[in-house]
Amino acid sequence: MTNYFSEDAGVMAPSPIRKLSAYLSNPDVISFAGGHPAVSAFPVEEIELIIDELKADFPPLLLQYGMTRGNKKLIEFSIAMLNRRGIPSTDQNVMLTGGSQRGLDLIGRVLIDPGDTVLVEVPSYPGALACFRNLRANLIGIKQDGQGLITSELVKTLEKCKSERIRPKALYTIPNFQNPSGTTLAKERRAELAELSERYDFLIIEDDPYGELYFDESTLRDTIPVASFNPDRVIYAASFSKILAPGLRTGLVRASADIAAKLELCAQASDLCSSTLDQHLVLKLCENGKLEKNLSKIRKYYREKGKALIAALEKSMPEDVSWNPPKGGFFLWLTLPEHIDSSELLKKTLEDNVIFVPGIHFCADGSGK
Amino acid sequence: MTNYFSEDAGVMAPSPIRKLSAYLSNPDVISFAGGHPAVSAFPVEEIELIIDELKADFPPLLLQYGMTRGNKKLIEFSIAMLNRRGIPSTDQNVMLTGGSQRGLDLIGRVLIDPGDTVLVEVPSYPGALACFRNLRANLIGIKQDGQGLITSELVKTLEKCKSERIRPKALYTIPNFQNPSGTTLAKERRAELAELSERYDFLIIEDDPYGELYFDESTLRDTIPVASFNPDRVIYAASFSKILAPGLRTGLVRASADIAAKLELCAQASDLCSSTLDQHLVLKLCENGKLEKNLSKIRKYYREKGKALIAALEKSMPEDVSWNPPKGGFFLWLTLPEHIDSSELLKKTLEDNVIFVPGIHFCADGSGK
Repeated sequence: MTNYFSEDAGVMAPSPIRKLSAYLSNPDVISFAGGHPAVSAFPVEEIELIIDELKADFPPLLLQYGMTRGNKKLIEFSIAMLNRRGIPSTDQNVMLTGGSQRGLDLIGRVLIDPGDTVLVEVPSYPGALACFRNLRANLIGIKQDGQGLITSELVKTLEKCKSERIRPKALYTIPNFQNPSGTTLAKERRAELAELSERYDFLIIEDDPYGELYFDESTLRDTIPVASFNPDRVIYAASFSKILAPGLRTGLVRASADIAAKLELCAQASDLCSSTLDQHLVLKLCENGKLEKNLSKIRKYYREKGKALIAALEKSMPEDVSWNPPKGGFFLWLTLPEHIDSSELLKKTLEDNVIFVPGIHFCADGSGK
Repeated sequence: MTNYFSEDAGVMAPSPIRKLSAYLSNPDVISFAGGHPAVSAFPVEEIELIIDELKADFPPLLLQYGMTRGNKKLIEFSIAMLNRRGIPSTDQNVMLTGGSQRGLDLIGRVLIDPGDTVLVEVPSYPGALACFRNLRANLIGIKQDGQGLITSELVKTLEKCKSERIRPKALYTIPNFQNPSGTTLAKERRAELAELSERYDFLIIEDDPYGELYFDESTLRDTIPVASFNPDRVIYAASFSKILAPGLRTGLVRASADIAAKLELCAQASDLCSSTLDQHLVLKLCENGKLEKNLSKIRKYYREKGKALIAALEKSMPEDVSWNPPKGGFFLWLTLPEHIDSSELLKKTLEDNVIFVPGIHFCADGSGK
């Protein structure tokens, strides 16, 4: 049947992370792969309370189709959250999606034609790379250092594109506790990105699922969204997956009103709406200060996990292995000595039931071996 | 920001049905628009029982990411259901999606390139037309009569395409209680469709959300899936939205193993997975004969509604308005006299708080006025 496939289908490749998740059903496996939140960080008690309320008198409309834009009250909550983060927003700007990946896919669909250039960080989230690749985007990688995306490298690339009459349509960035590098984009680089998007006329897709998961309160001031510097040029995606629970597929996209309207049209014909019940539960888990309460709990939880990981690495890793300790989020990037191929190493760690994702899967420029 | 939009985005248009659903928040509105199941047909008591079980001891894994293909037990249940319907299936063939519309979108993504020809019934479901149009498919309409899609018309179109060196990639059909005509495709035409797909080398996308909703047991033998005649050539989509509840976004796609694998790859990068909790609830609503029990209840319910509608039409409609009484499902198509434009009529009925969807929105060939 392969001669029926579209050209898009021709480039679709298996996700290395989803592939590794097959090992997760083995309870002996220790996984450093995939950004799955810890099950013990889920707000199970809170869910049980909400379910208790639902039990006696279940509102039948929770089983009906919802609006494409999403649950109105959860949109209101999201608008308040966005405004607090410094991104001025109204209901014209916001759409809820069935998870952040749905948001990325919808953004890709309304922006990217085959052959369009999209700039991405090296390394970056493989799910986003796959999403853009499936739309046959031309990905150009921009290197990071300990301060995140290197803006001087970005300028070089933008100048090169200009001289070759290539117009990059968008830059995809994860400024906070980046997946997978763990780095946080320096504040002055955020302002510079916003300014460059004007000067070189491209959009920024800012993916921020981890921003709320800083380990120390003092880091909060370093996580100010790029979108706050230039709300019209930035499409901002966030998610309730990492701060509440990914099984309740709920993400959000904030964009200029015309882009948000187009995202809604795309969603109308590609999913009609997301789960009505999930959005209701997410709303109940957020309301009345509950989200904040959960956040302070899991920030501590992940900080302790992060500390334990760093302590173990310091104790166990040879001297020629290096890393930047992250200030929040889920990710830590190990740089191995030149002579070790991380894909080969995975084969060995698999024998000991340990999995991780080899660097090559994150790197649009073919590096990361 | 419009100069950033993709070519796909350029063709995306608002859904007439989603637009009308804005009126639904007004409790005085009587809606004949949109295939929303009746709220009173939702299995609310059963949900309350399941929730009661969840309440005391909520399994935290219901909040975690699920597999892209979906909940394994619900896949097993779906496989048994497909085999009962005469479509031989294994787990290589089946994927669950976040509703049937997600399934259509994924199918479109892996099959359709811009300019590809897709054959559709006239009239047909606007959500599918929009999905294919958003991928810039060239839609060719095939007329229906009281027996559904007119296969002799299909042959004429296929011959015309052949002479013009156009290769239709797929035919989209809703054989049971069609949306919106209400017709059921005659059994001999089903066999013929399967045979034509071989002879003219195209795939069939068979959309079957309503097949279980026959009004009388005797109709069951008329609803045998086209896929049962030719499982390799047919991509079969079904849904739990109309037989349980659409808010629990869960649909399923059954395809040949290579197409199913490609659908999974596309889903990996466009939503990761559907709602874990929704799929769990759907499973619990299906297990132990519960789905069958619910079906016999709502079949009766919708039969009575259908009867009431027909009785009201017979009593109230002028002689030059005609219709085919449907044998199941949600839809009835009124043919108005030539001099009445249904879009103009909608403006008038809106004054009386009555909404319906004008025919033109269903007709890929521009008819339906």
